Amino acid sequence: MTLTKRTIDVVRVQGARRATAADCAAVEEPLEIRLHGRPFAVIMRTPGADRELAAGFLFSERVVTNPDGFGTIERCRDRAEDASRETPRETLRENVVNVTLTDPTALDRAFAGQRQVMTGSSCGLCGRRSIESLAVDVAPLSASWKMHAVSFATLAGRLREAQAVFDETGGLHAAGLFTPTGDLVDVAEDVGRHNAVDKVVGRRLMQEMWPVSDLALFVSGRSSFEILQKALLAGIPIVAAVSAPSTLAIDLAHEMGITLVGFVRGERFNIYTHSERITS
Amino acid sequence: MTLTKRTIDVVRVQGARRATAADCAAVEEPLEIRLHGRPFAVIMRTPGADRELAAGFLFSERVVTNPDGFGTIERCRDRAEDASRETPRETLRENVVNVTLTDPTALDRAFAGQRQVMTGSSCGLCGRRSIESLAVDVAPLSASWKMHAVSFATLAGRLREAQAVFDETGGLHAAGLFTPTGDLVDVAEDVGRHNAVDKVVGRRLMQEMWPVSDLALFVSGRSSFEILQKALLAGIPIVAAVSAPSTLAIDLAHEMGITLVGFVRGERFNIYTHSERITS
Repeated sequence: MTLTKRTIDVVRVQGARRATAADCAAVEEPLEIRLHGRPFAVIMRTPGADRELAAGFLFSERVVTNPDGFGTIERCRDRAEDASRETPRETLRENVVNVTLTDPTALDRAFAGQRQVMTGSSCGLCGRRSIESLAVDVAPLSASWKMHAVSFATLAGRLREAQAVFDETGGLHAAGLFTPTGDLVDVAEDVGRHNAVDKVVGRRLMQEMWPVSDLALFVSGRSSFEILQKALLAGIPIVAAVSAPSTLAIDLAHEMGITLVGFVRGERFNIYTHSERITS
Repeated sequence: MTLTKRTIDVVRVQGARRATAADCAAVEEPLEIRLHGRPFAVIMRTPGADRELAAGFLFSERVVTNPDGFGTIERCRDRAEDASRETPRETLRENVVNVTLTDPTALDRAFAGQRQVMTGSSCGLCGRRSIESLAVDVAPLSASWKMHAVSFATLAGRLREAQAVFDETGGLHAAGLFTPTGDLVDVAEDVGRHNAVDKVVGRRLMQEMWPVSDLALFVSGRSSFEILQKALLAGIPIVAAVSAPSTLAIDLAHEMGITLVGFVRGERFNIYTHSERITS
């Protein structure tokens, strides 16, 4: 059965109070799209309508231009279909859709064009072809510094104040870097959340104010796997977002020692992982 | 000067009233990142901190792993630097950043790995290397059907009702296809807006209920260039979003005959382009 949401444990903070509770998060998982058995693309998605997603994606990519262009669109469930692995896992095959095209020349064109496939939004997933390669070969973060819940509660307001454009256009995301006491050290805005994170991290790199493992990252919107991956690569141990995290963001944060906070609304927020870094 | 927002004309609709007004939209433009003069990636972004974005992006892509890895990070402004074009345009070069790396082997690795560069979110931009190639070689949409403002005002509520998961997780985007009278014919949810659009379009393709030029697309969140590009490829002449459009979404909609609507809040909404398809 396809699960679009998963029950998760959170620590709900409101001022000095904190309580554990069960909550629900939207599932995010990679989907590998294969053409005639050959890996073509990996996209992060919420499971459900995967075959439809593969069809729409290949249409958007102009691999297929009309309904007649599709031969079969099937999940890879069968061991025999997955020749690339000696020990296939069920979880892998749930996240793989194989598509055949009716026009053999379209297949050649797809892979010929693929060499130029670019990232449409700035994301940490790009550059890796298969689901296995998602795991990042960096060590978990072990920073021992902590942030007080009172300082934490000020971050959203400070980021909002620093956002020059948002109020007028309603169209920009923001990312801010904060000190443990809640002082804003940098902010960037962009139509893309990923870009806003890359901008603040990139500025620290350019100014050689590195590493940034003594700072917390706060983003408007939601926190996805890629946001967490960017934080992990930069060594940022606390990541917070105005809205919800995905399951894959939570899983990556849990495994890699990142404190993940969501639904930050003033003094109320949820801590999803490594709550020890937020003190009351 | 870098502009992060642009003044635009909108038609403000509230019930039976409509008035033209000036509004503000967040600028979205492609940025081409070159390595030693060679195109490496194109990302959609809001201008500003472009060099920082390039640095952060290359760090996220693991082309560079520390501050010492960067040689120079510069805008391409000079004709001589842009050997790929006989007649360089100023606008092009404003959107190109060239990066040199201190480690020559990192350059080789970057391009060796680039062959496997994949799309992190499902987007219509992927597969084209340079800014010039963004223009899509399809004809503008000329559908003459119209939608009444009263029908239109019901769309957001209907999409919300159809969203099975959103209320519980707060983490999912939705895309819906609607008839001219405002009936929902399909809905999909995903952590990514682009995916949600690909899912509903892909389902129509798979069911051979094609073309979809007699339907309107409604998305939660914002409308970006890629959302409009997907609608254009699918031939969908009316695109609406709960939140703001970017300038590039507005420009593409204007040029390609798409009616673009934003900030849909019940009977209040803004029409950005081709308002003739929404009648009062």
